[in-house]
Amino acid sequence: MNIPQSNLPRVVIIGGGFAGINLAKNLANKNIQVVLIDKHNYHTFQPLLYQVSSSGLEPDSIAYPLRKILKNHKSSFFRLAEVEQIVPETNTIVTTIGEITYDYLVIATGTKTNFFGNKDIESHGMPMKTVPQALNIRSLILQNFEKAAIANTNEEREALLNFVIVGGGPTGVELAGAIAELKNNILPKDYHDLNPDDMKIYLFEGSDRVLSSMSKHASKKAEAFLKDLGVNVNCNTTVTSYDGSKVSTNSEMVMESETLIWAAGVIGDPIQGLNKDVLIDKANRYKVNAYNQVLDYENIFAIGDIALMECKDYPNGHPQVAQPAIQQGKVLGKNLIRLINNKALKPFKYKDKGSMATIGRNKAVVDLKHYKFGGFFAWFVWMFVHLMSLVGFRNRVVILFNWTYNYINFDKAARLIIRPFKK
Amino acid sequence: MNIPQSNLPRVVIIGGGFAGINLAKNLANKNIQVVLIDKHNYHTFQPLLYQVSSSGLEPDSIAYPLRKILKNHKSSFFRLAEVEQIVPETNTIVTTIGEITYDYLVIATGTKTNFFGNKDIESHGMPMKTVPQALNIRSLILQNFEKAAIANTNEEREALLNFVIVGGGPTGVELAGAIAELKNNILPKDYHDLNPDDMKIYLFEGSDRVLSSMSKHASKKAEAFLKDLGVNVNCNTTVTSYDGSKVSTNSEMVMESETLIWAAGVIGDPIQGLNKDVLIDKANRYKVNAYNQVLDYENIFAIGDIALMECKDYPNGHPQVAQPAIQQGKVLGKNLIRLINNKALKPFKYKDKGSMATIGRNKAVVDLKHYKFGGFFAWFVWMFVHLMSLVGFRNRVVILFNWTYNYINFDKAARLIIRPFKK
Repeated sequence: MNIPQSNLPRVVIIGGGFAGINLAKNLANKNIQVVLIDKHNYHTFQPLLYQVSSSGLEPDSIAYPLRKILKNHKSSFFRLAEVEQIVPETNTIVTTIGEITYDYLVIATGTKTNFFGNKDIESHGMPMKTVPQALNIRSLILQNFEKAAIANTNEEREALLNFVIVGGGPTGVELAGAIAELKNNILPKDYHDLNPDDMKIYLFEGSDRVLSSMSKHASKKAEAFLKDLGVNVNCNTTVTSYDGSKVSTNSEMVMESETLIWAAGVIGDPIQGLNKDVLIDKANRYKVNAYNQVLDYENIFAIGDIALMECKDYPNGHPQVAQPAIQQGKVLGKNLIRLINNKALKPFKYKDKGSMATIGRNKAVVDLKHYKFGGFFAWFVWMFVHLMSLVGFRNRVVILFNWTYNYINFDKAARLIIRPFKK
Repeated sequence: MNIPQSNLPRVVIIGGGFAGINLAKNLANKNIQVVLIDKHNYHTFQPLLYQVSSSGLEPDSIAYPLRKILKNHKSSFFRLAEVEQIVPETNTIVTTIGEITYDYLVIATGTKTNFFGNKDIESHGMPMKTVPQALNIRSLILQNFEKAAIANTNEEREALLNFVIVGGGPTGVELAGAIAELKNNILPKDYHDLNPDDMKIYLFEGSDRVLSSMSKHASKKAEAFLKDLGVNVNCNTTVTSYDGSKVSTNSEMVMESETLIWAAGVIGDPIQGLNKDVLIDKANRYKVNAYNQVLDYENIFAIGDIALMECKDYPNGHPQVAQPAIQQGKVLGKNLIRLINNKALKPFKYKDKGSMATIGRNKAVVDLKHYKFGGFFAWFVWMFVHLMSLVGFRNRVVILFNWTYNYINFDKAARLIIRPFKK
């Protein structure tokens, strides 16, 4: 794939998510040749995908060109490709644009949506892990509004205005809240040919509370916020089938809906070629040691969501969110430099900075180690932390302006069907 | 199509471009039922499409939801549809979402790209009249850069880095300049695996000067600006064929190129059903009288690019740019109100506010009636006029910020391949 030969050790990083870019940044200009491979030419700020889906933010403001991240790194290279296979025997990977050898390989491919083998839901449900997927949801919601305005029967209109979200984790909760704001703030203004009361938002969660990875305090507050906004919250309920119109659940609840968004789980997206035993079956994560080295391999590493580092505090691995990925990327950067210089590696230790979720305007929940809170201040903290975590000054300013504008005007201004979604 | 029946006279407007939205705004809350129909749910600010193509602006900042334009208009309705036929005998139009009757019909469908019957160029060339088309060009340019970085032969790399733009009107000139800025400012920073000198931009114009609708002064300055930026300008040259790789011209110039952008002409996009004699064949524009009434029809009007109003100052009709469309939309709004109230109509009189084009950073040309100028001040005027013409405060601020950011940083920050373009 045409990477210049050099005497520098070559680190190949697969994936430009939080883990991959933080690693790449830490290897910049350190006498290491870095090759960053991704199937998109941009980094996606996944925590804000739901705002793209709900017309709050434009897609370009949560995406950042990967080449721009590497721009001052003289010995770093970006390649737009998908990796098809790892051949550890020859230190080679096979990609859609050819083969490349590595001295050190880092797998940072993250996760994809887990449909738990349900083919029906996979065919008809909407995942939300990438920018194009988020844009598909945005188009579908807006197309449904347009179709509802000309629906001939109440049944048809009902199915178009029922929005079903499966999964009560942060993604599902945040998206349900944002879609409820479309109902509350946008329909009355822009769709005077629709009755906002006809629009219903259903959130389904299999466990007994939303945000089950957070404190009970947060779950309770989040559920109250969701109900405030008019979301129909159903815990202890799983969606069992969806054929594109009929939604069935494990309770007696059944409904017609043109939109089912699936945010009920993720699964690792591993690559062919490594000894299967190093993979954990259930979540498809690579088992790694405290240095993020994939077990059995000296020069292959995994970081971020795809890595399973079992440790005392996290016997089932770290949470699959941005912070562990960012921290592992940074630490592995330093460790690779140590390794190349024959120095001892330092084990990874996760610093839990807390967790948070936003449900809507002035409504968020934050869990810190010793302090849990919700409401306006939590919402403000959520915004600040997300703005600061964004890559790039331009994106930060555009997002801050959009948030301010939307806040003042009770608006979600990016209500554009640029590419219609074909069901 | 489910528009409420009322006693108000109904005006159906086909097309939400400059003409259509200015008409709709002027009919708001005037005891008239307005139905605005468009195949997109947003208004496109066409003069800035080329900045989307060249990664300077995000698509969402030049698009504005049509429903938002109508939001305080209680008796105005938006419908997302394509119009298939006009049946003047029954005052009905047939659309993709059903039929609707009108008391007054206004055709504001604008123009589409004119390939002058060349099927090869139509299949392989890239038009740039809509946001999705502009995004296709953005993706293709960036994909070509990525492919060039891994090209195996010089010929392959050359074809990927040759960018051919056909048509030396404002669109072609502005796009050529913007692509040249990618070469000059972005390749050296972000693509250190490419040699910027390998990238070539060719502009072809059939007449003897670029910007032939403007003054000779403007043409001369624009050509000098383009050459400054490294654009290869070829006047008196037409592209005769393009098969997706080989470009042939009417001179001996021949080249291989993966990208040919066609900005060489537009043609009206009329609708089936009206007496063909009222159409001018060559440009497919509806002949209208001084009140924008389509000849032979009492209650059918055409405004904007699709209307051909022959008058003393403009024997071949008004220029097909934003200003005549905006002004005709406003004047027809007042005239329709007069018509409904049985008052005498006032003829349309075009106020020429001048014309302008920008070639790049600090480089623009402006023709006013008594004053023609170019350079930094012209560029500043160009920006100011375009900002002020944009619909919506949010879009203005986002664009102003992007321009400022890109200006300071010599950047074009939206270098994202969100949906890859498949050739």
